[in-house]
Amino acid sequence: MRIMVINPNSSPEMTKQIERVLLGIKRPETLLTVVRVEDAPPAIETDVDAAQAVPGVLRLVRKANEEGYDVVIIACFSDPGLGAAREISKILVLGIQETSLHIAGMLGHRFTILTPLPHRVPKKERDVRGLGLGEALASVRALGLTVTETEAEPERTKARILDVARAAVEEDGAEVLVLGCAGMAGYASEIEKKLGIVVIDPVTVTFKVAEGLAEMGLRHSKRALYRMPSKV
Amino acid sequence: MRIMVINPNSSPEMTKQIERVLLGIKRPETLLTVVRVEDAPPAIETDVDAAQAVPGVLRLVRKANEEGYDVVIIACFSDPGLGAAREISKILVLGIQETSLHIAGMLGHRFTILTPLPHRVPKKERDVRGLGLGEALASVRALGLTVTETEAEPERTKARILDVARAAVEEDGAEVLVLGCAGMAGYASEIEKKLGIVVIDPVTVTFKVAEGLAEMGLRHSKRALYRMPSKV
Amino acid sequence: MRIMVINPNSSPEMTKQIERVLLGIKRPETLLTVVRVEDAPPAIETDVDAAQAVPGVLRLVRKANEEGYDVVIIACFSDPGLGAAREISKILVLGIQETSLHIAGMLGHRFTILTPLPHRVPKKERDVRGLGLGEALASVRALGLTVTETEAEPERTKARILDVARAAVEEDGAEVLVLGCAGMAGYASEIEKKLGIVVIDPVTVTFKVAEGLAEMGLRHSKRALYRMPSKV
Amino acid sequence: MRIMVINPNSSPEMTKQIERVLLGIKRPETLLTVVRVEDAPPAIETDVDAAQAVPGVLRLVRKANEEGYDVVIIACFSDPGLGAAREISKILVLGIQETSLHIAGMLGHRFTILTPLPHRVPKKERDVRGLGLGEALASVRALGLTVTETEAEPERTKARILDVARAAVEEDGAEVLVLGCAGMAGYASEIEKKLGIVVIDPVTVTFKVAEGLAEMGLRHSKRALYRMPSKV
Amino acid sequence: MRIMVINPNSSPEMTKQIERVLLGIKRPETLLTVVRVEDAPPAIETDVDAAQAVPGVLRLVRKANEEGYDVVIIACFSDPGLGAAREISKILVLGIQETSLHIAGMLGHRFTILTPLPHRVPKKERDVRGLGLGEALASVRALGLTVTETEAEPERTKARILDVARAAVEEDGAEVLVLGCAGMAGYASEIEKKLGIVVIDPVTVTFKVAEGLAEMGLRHSKRALYRMPSKV
Amino acid sequence: MRIMVINPNSSPEMTKQIERVLLGIKRPETLLTVVRVEDAPPAIETDVDAAQAVPGVLRLVRKANEEGYDVVIIACFSDPGLGAAREISKILVLGIQETSLHIAGMLGHRFTILTPLPHRVPKKERDVRGLGLGEALASVRALGLTVTETEAEPERTKARILDVARAAVEEDGAEVLVLGCAGMAGYASEIEKKLGIVVIDPVTVTFKVAEGLAEMGLRHSKRALYRMPSKV
Repeated sequence: MRIMVINPNSSPEMTKQIERVLLGIKRPETLLTVVRVEDAPPAIETDVDAAQAVPGVLRLVRKANEEGYDVVIIACFSDPGLGAAREISKILVLGIQETSLHIAGMLGHRFTILTPLPHRVPKKERDVRGLGLGEALASVRALGLTVTETEAEPERTKARILDVARAAVEEDGAEVLVLGCAGMAGYASEIEKKLGIVVIDPVTVTFKVAEGLAEMGLRHSKRALYRMPSKV
Repeated sequence: MRIMVINPNSSPEMTKQIERVLLGIKRPETLLTVVRVEDAPPAIETDVDAAQAVPGVLRLVRKANEEGYDVVIIACFSDPGLGAAREISKILVLGIQETSLHIAGMLGHRFTILTPLPHRVPKKERDVRGLGLGEALASVRALGLTVTETEAEPERTKARILDVARAAVEEDGAEVLVLGCAGMAGYASEIEKKLGIVVIDPVTVTFKVAEGLAEMGLRHSKRALYRMPSKV
Repeated sequence: MRIMVINPNSSPEMTKQIERVLLGIKRPETLLTVVRVEDAPPAIETDVDAAQAVPGVLRLVRKANEEGYDVVIIACFSDPGLGAAREISKILVLGIQETSLHIAGMLGHRFTILTPLPHRVPKKERDVRGLGLGEALASVRALGLTVTETEAEPERTKARILDVARAAVEEDGAEVLVLGCAGMAGYASEIEKKLGIVVIDPVTVTFKVAEGLAEMGLRHSKRALYRMPSKV
Repeated sequence: MRIMVINPNSSPEMTKQIERVLLGIKRPETLLTVVRVEDAPPAIETDVDAAQAVPGVLRLVRKANEEGYDVVIIACFSDPGLGAAREISKILVLGIQETSLHIAGMLGHRFTILTPLPHRVPKKERDVRGLGLGEALASVRALGLTVTETEAEPERTKARILDVARAAVEEDGAEVLVLGCAGMAGYASEIEKKLGIVVIDPVTVTFKVAEGLAEMGLRHSKRALYRMPSKV
Repeated sequence: MRIMVINPNSSPEMTKQIERVLLGIKRPETLLTVVRVEDAPPAIETDVDAAQAVPGVLRLVRKANEEGYDVVIIACFSDPGLGAAREISKILVLGIQETSLHIAGMLGHRFTILTPLPHRVPKKERDVRGLGLGEALASVRALGLTVTETEAEPERTKARILDVARAAVEEDGAEVLVLGCAGMAGYASEIEKKLGIVVIDPVTVTFKVAEGLAEMGLRHSKRALYRMPSKV
Repeated sequence: MRIMVINPNSSPEMTKQIERVLLGIKRPETLLTVVRVEDAPPAIETDVDAAQAVPGVLRLVRKANEEGYDVVIIACFSDPGLGAAREISKILVLGIQETSLHIAGMLGHRFTILTPLPHRVPKKERDVRGLGLGEALASVRALGLTVTETEAEPERTKARILDVARAAVEEDGAEVLVLGCAGMAGYASEIEKKLGIVVIDPVTVTFKVAEGLAEMGLRHSKRALYRMPSKV
């Protein structure tokens, strides 16, 4: 099985971090390719960033289809270009936000999403509503750190995640925490031990779901919402 | 007052049609500019089309801000790039889908959206949910015509709109019809007379709301969801 | 264009305040008439007050229809008699609550309604749900002032609005504030500057929307919900 | 226990019919008074009708409070003036729509409301949403008969109810039928036998709930939504 | 009329307490039988407890049907086995949670449920959503006491209820309080006086509703959701 | 990895069918145990059936915990005992309904559930609402076949599935079909080819998700909703 993981930003460091984490959890027989969008912004923090990244994401999705991959994963927690990618793709495309929130919804009463910056809270709330998962949302809480800071300062990031996560559990009734930024990848198990709850790292969870679904030959439906554009 | 209307596709014909209609309804003192996105697809029929149009839309929104416009209207009934446009804009940006559906929600119990092609029905349903207007939706119904066909064959389009509208009223309980494609611009009043209901042409309604809001100096909130990106 | 603005209470002072504000923002060609319901309570603070005001509101709506007005605006933030008024009216009737909340819903992620008294918070929450706009509501917050006090003590009212608005923004995530009482008319722009957010004065926003919709000949649908009673 | 049942219209025939039905089911010790609103329309078929009836309803509610009644029931299936009545009443006020729909919601998966005229379907749908019971609604279906016709032609009414009820069960999945007009009072048990489902006559069900709640001394909360107006 | 009240746990003390309370409020002509499930856990505090109690509940429901009872009430505030009981029962079966929450929904804007232990809050929230009453819920608040403690320490329980109820009213906007545990039976009127709000004791309210509905011959619909199993 | 799959009914044939299907798709290194509940009904078609099966399900879940399994799957499309099972289990417990519906929600706009018998449609609709996935539901459609018939008559079952599925796609807008009965296991890929849509076999999809989540060490949260009962 061949899986292409697209990091929609242009950061080589984050791309490498994703690859390192996934190499540690992929099944031996899975062939992993992690790529970045070279002409995208170094971090996806706004809708403008996402808009700039999408054309590059779509190029890579086309490439994955042409080169015989089995699955594509868009590895940014705003699922940039997911709908368009599914339109042009015959192979399964998963976004780490959609996938991890569905899994989070199964593992406890309500989940809290941790997101880097406070002004992105409304966007995340809208994304959850758009996914039809509003009833499973305890809250969206911000770390008060940029994506770049979460990459650059792992200790501060980890400490901050702990503080915010504790508030989510005690004040919002969260039973599951979703680390809403690819830059937080790798902290899940450590945080989980300290707080005694379930913490979801979207990239790795999505990767495991992708391996499973692809093994069954499951893809997104091409009937209407994600129908192949006639002119492509 | 200066209003820039962006036709997010590259069709000069549709751009002219929009201009012609708006010239007929604008207030004398309003200065109107209608522009198209030259490197966009000729029609926005898929998420891929929208993704291709957005960078050009954003360029024009920046231009409108720099050149002292008072309002920008994105004149395509999928509001491509609306969120990103509001992020980078200090002046009011309105999308014709969001605006016309809010107005439709005030004028009757439920509205039906007419959309060109059947496989886009799910996308429209998701858009309405995303806008938080799901309770006002009677149905989305497809004409079974491409955007290009609605432009090329006005008589067939008008007849087809009448048939589908009648079904919406009688079977779905629609009290208001929203012509969900810029290519249908100009049919509203004629259809309305024939069916005895309220028909909304999104472009013109949005234009009138834009004139009114701009006159009051109202803009979208820049506090969080549409906060100006720090690096722009 | 002729617009009749009905102040559903009997207060001459509030009626004059509404007129003064609207004279300052109406288009030159708009003919404005502001009237009050002489046999209504001096302020609409309860459902009983509203019930007492409605017959007088309906009389005025009939008069507006007979005398050739183009639009009627019911200028009290509980939209008393709006449904009944639309039944008997062939011309467009707008309520300032319904209209301003739809506009508020377009200008940011969620809005907060400021209302005079704490025990009216449940009523406002129900009104928003009834309008199908529940997903756009951040909160309803009370000033702790009667309608009469908001009229009599403008400085105290303004200061109190600022305090409550700040809490709405910081604790409830409000991006838009709606001044939910006609008595607050005129404070919007000053408050907006101080808090850096969007503040909506329902009377003036509704007036501008009314001018725009009427110019397009738009009215509420007479098909079912607002059908003309057979015996009128 | 003393119960005042207010028929909000002015029809002596309907008032007598309600009295006759309730005399047949009331407990021996319950003292029943059925009154009509003399200056109301003869039937409540529109919002305008309701607005005209409400002042008279409120007069009677005040009277019931002054004369030591234990409960007031507003016996019209649009609950005209229910909120205002609860504001001014220290004793329990029940509306037959609200009460019967809550009971209907307990007795099966979804209920259908039968209403006299097709153009009132949207109003009923909004009422159900306003009550927060939208998830229990299978459908609202119209008989195509005026309130007056349902009174004047019992056989035709019964036959029509049967036809529409059958469609509600087979096409909409209704498990419970609510006879949404006081004029249908008395058909419930006969229809139920013929269709093998549960049919709710709002007047009698509400009367029985009223007896039970009043016996326990339960009233509506006077804390906020129905707080006593300060000036009454 | 004969009513069987099933206490789904095995506690003789709680069974007696329920009987004592109901004997004080039943109508003279009502024949009351209160039974417990002898092989159930002594208190129903978890889903596992409920699963263990259900077979015994169903045995008693069958017995009530065979012995000519008119109603069965399942007197535990998680309605254990309610759906299954209704399947096998031709006579009306009411659960105290479902019934009391519908009544609570009529008596004020929103209700708060008091529940013994904090970790059961999510379960109650899901129950309310399952009943389709989510819009009427102010909050679920925990006493921090086990069911056994609420039985053993009435004074401490009463004091604790007062504290938590006050918080529900002031912080969550509750207008009605539902004592979400059969072990709290009997405190309602005292608490109500102290807080000036409406307090619902689910067992007694349900009992009164049961008397009323049974008098009218109302039962749950046997058409689909609660259809009699073919093999029973 | 060791996975215990519990068939909650007592049918040896269905148990073997499940085992056969899963042996064909499990990873080589996964150790599979499929067990049945010997004292359960031969098919779970009612809430009463489910209630009878649950104690046996819980015994097997305890056994799986004691014997060092990594995951338990409850392989009946009503997830009988899922909540209770998670309470007493430290290892991951998945239900095939909850899991497959979350996956279905990711792969298209809306899904239709096929269920054996018409009178179970309401129950399925309630289950979906209970899972918080109501917005993703296109419809529940019944085959009109008992669970036993679906086992006994595979050709008739397959033909019937095709007919009903076609109606779901064309009339309800389904993009994904969920075969809502373990007895339909194995038809998914064949149906999918014929209809050109995505068909989900809940048992196999859940099995693959289980392998993936267990590999990551993910479990349900034990913090509140599924907290370990103190006395177990």
